[in-house]
Amino acid sequence: MSFLDEVPWNDAGLIAVVAQDSKSARVLTVAWMNREALKETVERQEAVYWSRSRKRLWRKGEESGHVQKIVEVRLDCDSDAVLLKVEQVGGIACHTGRESCFFRKLEHGRWVTSDPVLKDPSLIYKK
Amino acid sequence: MSFLDEVPWNDAGLIAVVAQDSKSARVLTVAWMNREALKETVERQEAVYWSRSRKRLWRKGEESGHVQKIVEVRLDCDSDAVLLKVEQVGGIACHTGRESCFFRKLEHGRWVTSDPVLKDPSLIYKK
Repeated sequence: MSFLDEVPWNDAGLIAVVAQDSKSARVLTVAWMNREALKETVERQEAVYWSRSRKRLWRKGEESGHVQKIVEVRLDCDSDAVLLKVEQVGGIACHTGRESCFFRKLEHGRWVTSDPVLKDPSLIYKK
Repeated sequence: MSFLDEVPWNDAGLIAVVAQDSKSARVLTVAWMNREALKETVERQEAVYWSRSRKRLWRKGEESGHVQKIVEVRLDCDSDAVLLKVEQVGGIACHTGRESCFFRKLEHGRWVTSDPVLKDPSLIYKK
């Protein structure tokens, strides 16, 4: 697919990806994709990332059910980041059971947890 | 500053940063910070990035005047990305004169420019 050729994959073959909730507009996650992940994301219309720690494709929601359905895919001006607008199934993107992974806010020089846990992770990940 | 010590800077000493407009909620840019850039961002309350191409601190808006005033600084769950909520001076974050750097949208397998130029770049960068 030609749009894949326009992405200047970095030395590790990856591009940074921001996922944003299409309704709440919250930035949910920052993750990475390789060529195969972006191809599959567009084909499935669900977010597929490259897990750098597990070194394999990571179909977001494969364990939690918290799939990210694609609403829009955007590319930035210097082609080094992708923006996904998504419908976040379950309203939870973070493995901690919160809406967004960005749940810590800098306050007076300290990172303070400012967002509630919406669902206990032990109820999300049952394995 | 202790909050800087909690950031697990990558091998290049950097962390990915997403800037989001606090009013329009649009994702404006993805850039990078080193320790000094994050420290200075918090001190000045204006976004300071690390330019990987120019290999120097990049005080966003230093040439264009399109400064990003800090509204909020957030850190994600695995501490590998920072989210800035900003007031984007001039309403233009992109060097192309558009609100956001994410002005291309994937449509039927092609990246299509979907956002208008708000100001001619030749009028922004007068040097």
